[in-house]
Amino acid sequence: MATVLIREAAEGDCGAIMKMIRELAEFEKLLDQVKISEGALKTDGFGENPFYHCLVAEVPSEHSNPLGSTVVGYGLYYFTYSTWTGRNVYLEDIYVMPKYRGQGIGSKLIKKVAEVALENGCSQFRLAVLDWNQSAMDFYKARGAKDLTVAEGWRFFRFDNEAMRELVRK
Amino acid sequence: MATVLIREAAEGDCGAIMKMIRELAEFEKLLDQVKISEGALKTDGFGENPFYHCLVAEVPSEHSNPLGSTVVGYGLYYFTYSTWTGRNVYLEDIYVMPKYRGQGIGSKLIKKVAEVALENGCSQFRLAVLDWNQSAMDFYKARGAKDLTVAEGWRFFRFDNEAMRELVRK
Repeated sequence: MATVLIREAAEGDCGAIMKMIRELAEFEKLLDQVKISEGALKTDGFGENPFYHCLVAEVPSEHSNPLGSTVVGYGLYYFTYSTWTGRNVYLEDIYVMPKYRGQGIGSKLIKKVAEVALENGCSQFRLAVLDWNQSAMDFYKARGAKDLTVAEGWRFFRFDNEAMRELVRK
Repeated sequence: MATVLIREAAEGDCGAIMKMIRELAEFEKLLDQVKISEGALKTDGFGENPFYHCLVAEVPSEHSNPLGSTVVGYGLYYFTYSTWTGRNVYLEDIYVMPKYRGQGIGSKLIKKVAEVALENGCSQFRLAVLDWNQSAMDFYKARGAKDLTVAEGWRFFRFDNEAMRELVRK
């Protein structure tokens, strides 16, 4: 098992992250929804007021992936706010390339997100899972997460761009 | 119908917002989960890097509520990030005091959030709804929102503070 380093992403990692974002969306069967570019990731994550933060999992160069990158996983998160409990962390994406699974890299990413959350005074760590992704649900439940859609009935709603424009026109 | 002003919340509104947060949680049958204080709302929303933004609905003083406040509704939101579409807005809470409903105040708050989202280059406006709150679901659907839990199977997961500490210990 290779030694894996979990570190904060740098701007130069955006190419590798973009590639993994597409791999994850493909797995989620929602690749057609990916509209983002590497340039947007750079602008939005590495300016003065970043819209997100990202961790990457890096392996030594002798274990690099077929494309020569040593970055083999990522966890992208941001800070949110609960009017019940205050500061929270939301994990938008977590992904480890198939070849590097089963080595605990996902667990290390999750653990690091929890550390960042606690260091910043967050009381909760939230995420969303697709209901057909049983192994992901089992993974989080085994680590103490609660399924709030089942437990309390929370559902996700979304206005897309066109719906927002329509709201504003009214 | 009173003239309603939708404006950004000021630090001095936190007392009124705190009161409405409790009213909303009581309606949602989850009041025991409210642990936040007015002081935390002030620190987290009005410092250099605010964790949230808040709009309030204000009525003229002759229409003030029984406690003398002219603030009768709020919408609390923050910026999030999608690895598919970039910048998003998430509406954590929206609330209008019962006495002031039926005047379109909720719609005005929603509209203002959509305006802020578009001004900031956001492609989506997300929120969560409890599945027994049919009138809220109808309200959002009528305005073009999509129920992603039904359409795509997304479920909410949450690690609470103790679960996060356990993750970090491992």
